[in-house]
Amino acid sequence: MHILVIGAAGMVGRKLVQRLAREKGLGGNPITAMTLADVIEPAAPEGFSGTVTALAVDVSDANVVRKLISGRPEVIFHLAAIVSGEAEANFDKGYAINLDGTRYLLDAIRAEGQRAPYVPRVVNTSSIAVFGAPFPEVIHDEFFTTPLTSYGTQKAIGELLLTDYSRKGFLDGISIRLPTICIRPGKPNAAASGFFSNILREPLAGQEAVLPVEDDVLHWHASPRSAVGFLIHAATMDLAPMGWRRALTMPGLPATVGQQIEALRRVAGEKAVKLIRRVPDETIRRIVAGWPRQFDASRALSLGFVAEKTFDEIIRVHIEDELGGRIP
Amino acid sequence: MHILVIGAAGMVGRKLVQRLAREKGLGGNPITAMTLADVIEPAAPEGFSGTVTALAVDVSDANVVRKLISGRPEVIFHLAAIVSGEAEANFDKGYAINLDGTRYLLDAIRAEGQRAPYVPRVVNTSSIAVFGAPFPEVIHDEFFTTPLTSYGTQKAIGELLLTDYSRKGFLDGISIRLPTICIRPGKPNAAASGFFSNILREPLAGQEAVLPVEDDVLHWHASPRSAVGFLIHAATMDLAPMGWRRALTMPGLPATVGQQIEALRRVAGEKAVKLIRRVPDETIRRIVAGWPRQFDASRALSLGFVAEKTFDEIIRVHIEDELGGRIP
Repeated sequence: MHILVIGAAGMVGRKLVQRLAREKGLGGNPITAMTLADVIEPAAPEGFSGTVTALAVDVSDANVVRKLISGRPEVIFHLAAIVSGEAEANFDKGYAINLDGTRYLLDAIRAEGQRAPYVPRVVNTSSIAVFGAPFPEVIHDEFFTTPLTSYGTQKAIGELLLTDYSRKGFLDGISIRLPTICIRPGKPNAAASGFFSNILREPLAGQEAVLPVEDDVLHWHASPRSAVGFLIHAATMDLAPMGWRRALTMPGLPATVGQQIEALRRVAGEKAVKLIRRVPDETIRRIVAGWPRQFDASRALSLGFVAEKTFDEIIRVHIEDELGGRIP
Repeated sequence: MHILVIGAAGMVGRKLVQRLAREKGLGGNPITAMTLADVIEPAAPEGFSGTVTALAVDVSDANVVRKLISGRPEVIFHLAAIVSGEAEANFDKGYAINLDGTRYLLDAIRAEGQRAPYVPRVVNTSSIAVFGAPFPEVIHDEFFTTPLTSYGTQKAIGELLLTDYSRKGFLDGISIRLPTICIRPGKPNAAASGFFSNILREPLAGQEAVLPVEDDVLHWHASPRSAVGFLIHAATMDLAPMGWRRALTMPGLPATVGQQIEALRRVAGEKAVKLIRRVPDETIRRIVAGWPRQFDASRALSLGFVAEKTFDEIIRVHIEDELGGRIP
């Protein structure tokens, strides 16, 4: 089996590739080759004996995308995107990568299938940014998509295209909307959502972290390990029960900042909690207030997607996967 | 005021242009010029003393669209589309006109605005084909868009793009989803929905009509006059109260085929009803069963859009507008 990962150098992409390399198979089929593409050349995974082709590519170039598909990968993970802030600041770049790039991918698959039968599984990462305030307290599976960013607009369009190309039989696609990934490994970053991870990751490493919002801020979380699990499940499940409703909000854990901190206290003690410094930031508070808070992801749950049930679990996943199993 | 109508040769486009020519103004502003574009050259309206430019164009050519916009029309009605059946049969053509054409239009407006300030009102006709079964009994304003046709997909994408370009300040746009237009003037056509009009229009003209479905089939209707009214209202209303939810299901009249026939009996007598010939057609029955039946269009109603309240009214509109005020 040949797998293509577009966006393989990102945080979730890297973890996905590592897991595929470790398991050496997908849905019972041995993986013989992986093509890893990103805007920078992705690292090859360790301990994988199959063929690895790592490529630095620009998916807003239709010819480049056609070349990626000419290898006829059976499974395609499409994780590449210009993120929300950048797509908002650079309108043309966001549309070029997030909309045109996705369409080039779907059209390349269709063209390949016109040469000889070819209907790959395509797992497309979408986002809860397809939703825009005002929201009901809990967003259900049939709530409409009214994005308030260009990024969310591009993701919503990608969902529609993937479904239509699936319905026409050109590919077998599913779009999954990821929750906020927590705990993001790495350094604190400037993203408005960064603090959800910072206030756990930094104290677990003995470092201070800044909390810019109140304790009652509610948000929707899943671990990086769960995100990879969603992708693998989406790549291997039977999609027929979904009908032509191929975009799906992933399950997650609703938790307030206060609940995050309580979980940190239980797992790492008062010493860790003391490293959280409260520095209210009105700008971040306002941005976060416009985000969806909680979902009823019944449909995804009924289709076998699984996320964490407690924040203690989310913290333990981080300790296992990033800190070698113990708090330094 | 300069008005551009793209799709001016279609049934609704022609009626819109006639009304604009008759009223010689829009929202209190005198109309000095109209540019009428379609795939065939639209007819110039009678009795209009302003400048009329009628053009046969291909909106899937970005240069053609840029030229249309170079005249900087203050109001743009975008009615052009490859219809549902053709977009389903010809995938490339549907996407070229319905998706690329719309995007070229929005991009041409943005480019014009980068030369010198320009934020036209854009009224985009969408369709209830953005919805896909299974449906609740009544579809409310926050129901999700899961189209089951390429046409519906392209319309849903157009809605998303128009909203994003509006939010970014490139234009001031609104998408309106039209009900089934009844009574469509002209000859009976092969569209699966044709019978909703045929069973009224033909008997009113003393001709036989074929009814391929049962009397209990429920559908969502508005007259051509209402459709034009929706467009005019959308072109002149304040859009700020809509926020960035710029796609709107228009009000309509829910009626069963039986209720249509009862109205025909009241308006035109038993003689007209006797001209309806029941010829059940399983294919049409199945297609129609997959269509949405009824909407709660509260949002459009609260924003001042008005449709007919009885089917008698819909029939009378046809008699006034198409039959010179009396049944032949």
